[in-house]
Amino acid sequence: MKKPLILVTNDDGITAPGIRNLVSFMNELGEVIVVAPDSPQSGKGHAITINSTLTYDEVNMEGPQKDYALSGTPVDCVKFALDKILKRKPDIVVSGINHGSNSSINVIYSGTMSAAVEAGLEGLPAIGFSLLDFNWEADFSQSKSFIQHIVKKVLEQPLPKGIVLNVNIPKLHQNEIKGIKICKQAHAKWEESFDERINPHGKKYYWLTGYFNNMDQSEDADETALSEGYISVVPVKFDLTAYEYLQNLQKTFDC
Amino acid sequence: MKKPLILVTNDDGITAPGIRNLVSFMNELGEVIVVAPDSPQSGKGHAITINSTLTYDEVNMEGPQKDYALSGTPVDCVKFALDKILKRKPDIVVSGINHGSNSSINVIYSGTMSAAVEAGLEGLPAIGFSLLDFNWEADFSQSKSFIQHIVKKVLEQPLPKGIVLNVNIPKLHQNEIKGIKICKQAHAKWEESFDERINPHGKKYYWLTGYFNNMDQSEDADETALSEGYISVVPVKFDLTAYEYLQNLQKTFDC
Repeated sequence: MKKPLILVTNDDGITAPGIRNLVSFMNELGEVIVVAPDSPQSGKGHAITINSTLTYDEVNMEGPQKDYALSGTPVDCVKFALDKILKRKPDIVVSGINHGSNSSINVIYSGTMSAAVEAGLEGLPAIGFSLLDFNWEADFSQSKSFIQHIVKKVLEQPLPKGIVLNVNIPKLHQNEIKGIKICKQAHAKWEESFDERINPHGKKYYWLTGYFNNMDQSEDADETALSEGYISVVPVKFDLTAYEYLQNLQKTFDC
Repeated sequence: MKKPLILVTNDDGITAPGIRNLVSFMNELGEVIVVAPDSPQSGKGHAITINSTLTYDEVNMEGPQKDYALSGTPVDCVKFALDKILKRKPDIVVSGINHGSNSSINVIYSGTMSAAVEAGLEGLPAIGFSLLDFNWEADFSQSKSFIQHIVKKVLEQPLPKGIVLNVNIPKLHQNEIKGIKICKQAHAKWEESFDERINPHGKKYYWLTGYFNNMDQSEDADETALSEGYISVVPVKFDLTAYEYLQNLQKTFDC
C-alpha cells in the first residue's frame, strides 16, 4: 500500500518543539512534507496575507521529511502548500502540536486550528493538536501514541467533508491520560484587561492580557473532559450559520 | 429615552469611506464612539495582537462622534474599546461598512465580521455590514435606509446571546434593492493560485490571488439572495461544534 502523504503545519513557527515532535510522530505513519510559518503566528486566527507578499525557503531539519518555511500565516501555509509545493493532494493535514490549549473559544483565535479549518475547506481530512502546556520545553512525547492513534483512525475512516477535528491533550504523563473523549466546544471566554505602560518617549502602550473564564460545567464540554484527564476531540465546522435562529430572525424582519 | 451608545469599528481602517458612511448613519440613531484600526486590516480574520503591543490616538474626524485609531486588528479594537475607552457597555456594536463582500465563506477571513463576532462573545448585539463593491469610492449612501432599519430592529428586539448578524448589500441603487432576506451561509470557497514574481535581488515572491467558487445554488443561501438583488442577513454563531456529527465520531473512536 502506498504511504499516506501528510502535510504538517503549525502556528508557533517551523522550529517550535511542538511541530518537530509532531513531524517525528508522523514520519512513522507516512511521507511527510512540512510547510510552516518562518516565525511565531500565535493568535493569528484565520488571517491571510493579501496586502503584502510571501517568500519561502527550504530548510534543513532533522528527519527524512522535507521542510519549507513560509513568511506567512498558518492559513497561508496551507494554501501555499497545496498550490505551490505539494505534487499531489495530501491524504491528511495535521497542525500543531500547539504550545498551549486551543479548547473551547480558543478555537477561533487559534492559528493552529485555522490551518486545519482551511484544509477542511479544501475538502481534506484535517486535525489540529494542542498540548495544555505553554512551556517551550513541554514534554510532547507523552502524547505520541494518542496522536498516532487519532491520525490512523482518520486515515482509515475519513471525516465527512466540511468537518475537522480539534484535539486538546492534558498536561499529564501518558499513563495518567484516561482516554479520548468526543466533546462539544465549551461555552467560555477571555476576560480581557490591557496592561498599560509608558514608553521611553512618554507615550502609553498596552499589552493584551486577561484570564480564561469557563462558564460551562456540562459533562460533554471539552473543558470538562480535559479537567478530568481526558483528551478532548471536538468536530469543528466552518458553516457558521445559526440555523436554529433562522426562523425567529425572519419574524423580527417580517413585522 | 436615553440615546443608545453605538460602538463602530471596521477592518479597512478608520479613514475608509465605508466606516465614515456608517458613522454618519449611526449618528442619527445614537451616541457614537469609533475605535478602529489605524491601518487597513483586511483578511485578518479573528487575529489578536499578543506578541507585540498596542498604541492609540484620538483623531479628529467630521461629525459629533469621538474617534480613536488603534494600532491593532479589528478584534483588538473591540477588546480595547470595551476595556479602555468606553465608560459603559455599548447597546450595539456595528462593524463596516466593508469595501467588498463578506458573504458565504468570506465570513471566516473577514476582519469586519470577526470584530462583530468578538462583540457577540462579550454578550453584545453586533452586526457586520459589507457592500459588494471593492471600489474605494463606492456609493455607500444607497444602503443608508436599510442599514438604519436593521440596526433599529436589533436595538428594539435584541439578538439571542451568542448570535451576530452578517449583512451583505448588493451593489445596486436603493430603489433596485428588493428587500432583506434571512439566509444561510452559502457553501463556497476560494480557488487559490499564487502569482509568482522575481524581486530585484533574484528571489521569488508570491501574491495570493484566486477566484471565488460558489458551489451552492440553494434558494436560502446568501449568494443566491445577493445575486437576486436582496440584502442578505445571516445569523452567525461562534460555537463551531458540528453537533450533527458527534455521535458518528463517537463510533469511530469506540471501534
